[in-house]
Amino acid sequence: MFEEIFDNVRKKSPLVHNITNYVTVNDCANVLLACGSSPIMADELEDAVEITAICGGLNINIGTLNQRTIPAMFASGKQANELGHPVVLDPVGAGASTLRTETALGLLKEVKFAVIRGNISEIKTLGLGSGTTKGVDADAADKVTEENLDGTLSFAKDFARRTRAVIAITGAIDIVTDGERTFCIRNGRPEMSAITGTGCQLSALTAAFVTANPDQALEAAAAAVCAMGLCGETAYQRMTNLDGNSSYRNYIIDAMYRLTPAELERGANYEVR
Amino acid sequence: MFEEIFDNVRKKSPLVHNITNYVTVNDCANVLLACGSSPIMADELEDAVEITAICGGLNINIGTLNQRTIPAMFASGKQANELGHPVVLDPVGAGASTLRTETALGLLKEVKFAVIRGNISEIKTLGLGSGTTKGVDADAADKVTEENLDGTLSFAKDFARRTRAVIAITGAIDIVTDGERTFCIRNGRPEMSAITGTGCQLSALTAAFVTANPDQALEAAAAAVCAMGLCGETAYQRMTNLDGNSSYRNYIIDAMYRLTPAELERGANYEVR
Amino acid sequence: MFEEIFDNVRKKSPLVHNITNYVTVNDCANVLLACGSSPIMADELEDAVEITAICGGLNINIGTLNQRTIPAMFASGKQANELGHPVVLDPVGAGASTLRTETALGLLKEVKFAVIRGNISEIKTLGLGSGTTKGVDADAADKVTEENLDGTLSFAKDFARRTRAVIAITGAIDIVTDGERTFCIRNGRPEMSAITGTGCQLSALTAAFVTANPDQALEAAAAAVCAMGLCGETAYQRMTNLDGNSSYRNYIIDAMYRLTPAELERGANYEVR
Repeated sequence: MFEEIFDNVRKKSPLVHNITNYVTVNDCANVLLACGSSPIMADELEDAVEITAICGGLNINIGTLNQRTIPAMFASGKQANELGHPVVLDPVGAGASTLRTETALGLLKEVKFAVIRGNISEIKTLGLGSGTTKGVDADAADKVTEENLDGTLSFAKDFARRTRAVIAITGAIDIVTDGERTFCIRNGRPEMSAITGTGCQLSALTAAFVTANPDQALEAAAAAVCAMGLCGETAYQRMTNLDGNSSYRNYIIDAMYRLTPAELERGANYEVR
Repeated sequence: MFEEIFDNVRKKSPLVHNITNYVTVNDCANVLLACGSSPIMADELEDAVEITAICGGLNINIGTLNQRTIPAMFASGKQANELGHPVVLDPVGAGASTLRTETALGLLKEVKFAVIRGNISEIKTLGLGSGTTKGVDADAADKVTEENLDGTLSFAKDFARRTRAVIAITGAIDIVTDGERTFCIRNGRPEMSAITGTGCQLSALTAAFVTANPDQALEAAAAAVCAMGLCGETAYQRMTNLDGNSSYRNYIIDAMYRLTPAELERGANYEVR
Repeated sequence: MFEEIFDNVRKKSPLVHNITNYVTVNDCANVLLACGSSPIMADELEDAVEITAICGGLNINIGTLNQRTIPAMFASGKQANELGHPVVLDPVGAGASTLRTETALGLLKEVKFAVIRGNISEIKTLGLGSGTTKGVDADAADKVTEENLDGTLSFAKDFARRTRAVIAITGAIDIVTDGERTFCIRNGRPEMSAITGTGCQLSALTAAFVTANPDQALEAAAAAVCAMGLCGETAYQRMTNLDGNSSYRNYIIDAMYRLTPAELERGANYEVR
């Protein structure tokens, strides 16, 4: 299944509009190119709405949001909705500041998202109003473990049903659910969290996968999560004892460039619940 | 000839002011350092005009333009003109949105450019009002091939004469013309388009080359195009079967850092028409 | 001593708020992660003050400053002061434009800094009103050498006493002083200046080190300077004859990721005056 989904990305080369932070934007662009998609960035209201219209999908990432870019997020989100383009939300740092939390909640009210992807603290902030986001990383207290997995699953499913979005909570165990079916994914490496923006990259990737597979948002999001994690594994095998997080970042994007649909099918490590 | 031109860059170490997008700005800075130039970025109106004055050249790139940076582009462009500094325009995404197209056209009216560098769709948008820009990449329909090369050459020459700028259209075959003489360049690798910002890097590089060779804008722009393409070739030879677009990006900048003027002279692959 | 200081960074994993330029921000984030710290970026007034409050330290870097981010710098700086969080200033390009110089001078008036780190031209601009900043690099005329070292030391000490900040002037010889004691540091490689943002990275690193060692700002800043220089040395040994400034950038961050507190203790090359 993931083979066909990834194949669609490579064949259709979806054009994805990203309104995203300036910290990890270059990596987002390169990982989109690596997976076969084509990125464009535009965050000025006047420009963004028109760029949304020529693209196939939209990725909204609220890291380094500001009063100039927030209106572009809302307007592009609505524009994409009108055109039937899938929209992904990455609520970076929701729970860490009022502006981030309220912008994310406002977007949830006014824009229909295909996928919402974040760490557990960010998603809890949006779903329960109670996340304890530590900056842009998930708080240890929120961590998804084998022990609290069932509880997290039912929270995620409930949030998916309420938002009518696929919810992707990523961490040591990744959860991707549409409220009915859930993928529990165990790809990836803990060292990925020592690279800035692997989450941002995954959200961009998810937008590309969903754009190329509009009728299978759940499977496409799960495939993107598996692909990112699998590239983290492949890239890790390449690490020498001189390499650190900067080379690892390059190797992960390289791995995405080299990944074939068949390899994704074989390497994806998940169970459906 | 290119040997001397590149030697001037390395010897004079021109300070280049860049008003550019936040997606590829880091790579632009590193490729400028790699070629021997010194980059500075400033995009706030008040700051930019003064920075333009202390620099030798200016590179205006309209990717991720906004209402705050557009006035800086106009003011710095005029400032550079008054001081006789060369200005390069990279009309990223012209044709993809009204704001981009009109900003580029407005800049063409109010600023005298030494070089305008873009892909064929962007340049057609500016020259004919008819490009079919697909996001930030050239549209397949616009592609320069051996078959339509003559027609593209005469369009480029005409546009160069009208703007009194050197026009650099880059793609599989690169065209650099001042309206009289034209360099057709066949350096480079198709894989370069899988890296975000190789075009932006080339525009920054062009600004450095023209700044160090102010009386030879045509030759300097052609040398920059050859240098970037040649580095793409050299870097490609270094690729292993684990490397992808992220390592390739690093290798290209590395290759520029290592490139000697004599190697550029030898490796440049062009004909003058 | 540096062993314990670096150990504190790795153990406490300080959360550092960065208001910084968009050119080198990704490298700043990755070098913070490499040293064991956790970065967050926020530059919108409303967002920034709240983010400052949840962080342990603040790094203000004025490269690509603008009218939107300047108020955030002032407000976050004051907020950090009120909360007793250490604040680092990197006055990128002070002396190159009025806006940069005046913003840096204004910040010095209204915010108490733990550390001010810059090149000699930037620091002279702030301390004497007479630096001759060439863009974002130190001017050759200002260069710290064995010959003018004593004079530079007494200027730095005087500036430290006046600002009650640790002053870190980095270049071929690095000077770190609190006005009483001074570290003269000889780690590093000249090739580091061919990478954009090694100075920005060092300022971010310094914020992490000082945040994890709040009662030893002088030693923490000196340890950060030694760590960055040492990583420049280690990374240089790894360079092949194909590598250039882009790979070197990656290798330095990798080296920071691998650096142990004991290695820092052994490799730090300094004298205390």
